Amino acid sequence: MGVWHTPIKNPKDAPRQGIEGGINGEIELDPRWARGLTGVEPGAHIWVFSFFNHAKEPELYFYPHGGESKHKTGLFNTRSPNRPAPIGMTLVKVLSINENRLEVKGVDALDGTPVLDIKPHLARLDSPKA
Amino acid sequence: MGVWHTPIKNPKDAPRQGIEGGINGEIELDPRWARGLTGVEPGAHIWVFSFFNHAKEPELYFYPHGGESKHKTGLFNTRSPNRPAPIGMTLVKVLSINENRLEVKGVDALDGTPVLDIKPHLARLDSPKA
Repeated sequence: MGVWHTPIKNPKDAPRQGIEGGINGEIELDPRWARGLTGVEPGAHIWVFSFFNHAKEPELYFYPHGGESKHKTGLFNTRSPNRPAPIGMTLVKVLSINENRLEVKGVDALDGTPVLDIKPHLARLDSPKA
Repeated sequence: MGVWHTPIKNPKDAPRQGIEGGINGEIELDPRWARGLTGVEPGAHIWVFSFFNHAKEPELYFYPHGGESKHKTGLFNTRSPNRPAPIGMTLVKVLSINENRLEVKGVDALDGTPVLDIKPHLARLDSPKA
């Protein structure tokens, strides 16, 4: 559906998660989908779904945080990109929109990573309830 | 990777979003992935990624909320299941875990919907910053 344009050219330079880094980048959608961005406004927070096309074979039980953690845990208790379905979700802030291009803040994807979907962040759905 | 077992047998019975409904259901993973659930505990909130295998051809600009809204908006400003990549994310609460099966609360998926991924909800990554 689209592609990431980011300053992150090498996996080792990627922040662990976008919102912690604050890197800016651009999402370029195939022009056929541009109209679907109607109503997405600067300042909004959106979920971007990416396809981790550099993902490796998943480990099911490992030391998370790039091996820095002292305790092993299960893959589904982590955000590792190496998953059975290597799909990532990143919450980013929209800076500007120009037809089929969105400039966003909070990028964690390698340059060239495919973008699968964009969804609005909705606090009532995306926050835990008691 | 897995499948949803839910009491929702017909699309018209599905709540618009799971957390608003409070329906209980079960995720059954292929047993080969069970170890990846290590560390996922009852009471935790998790994201479940589902493949909307009943999705229709996407509309790019339409009346959201099942047509109830008075104003059209763009597809990527909605959570409609009818998307170029029909992947849904639902925040649910874990009730219990038994090997490759998780009982969860907050279900919005039709019975039999494929499950693609499970990720932990992490407030620091999954909440907007200023």
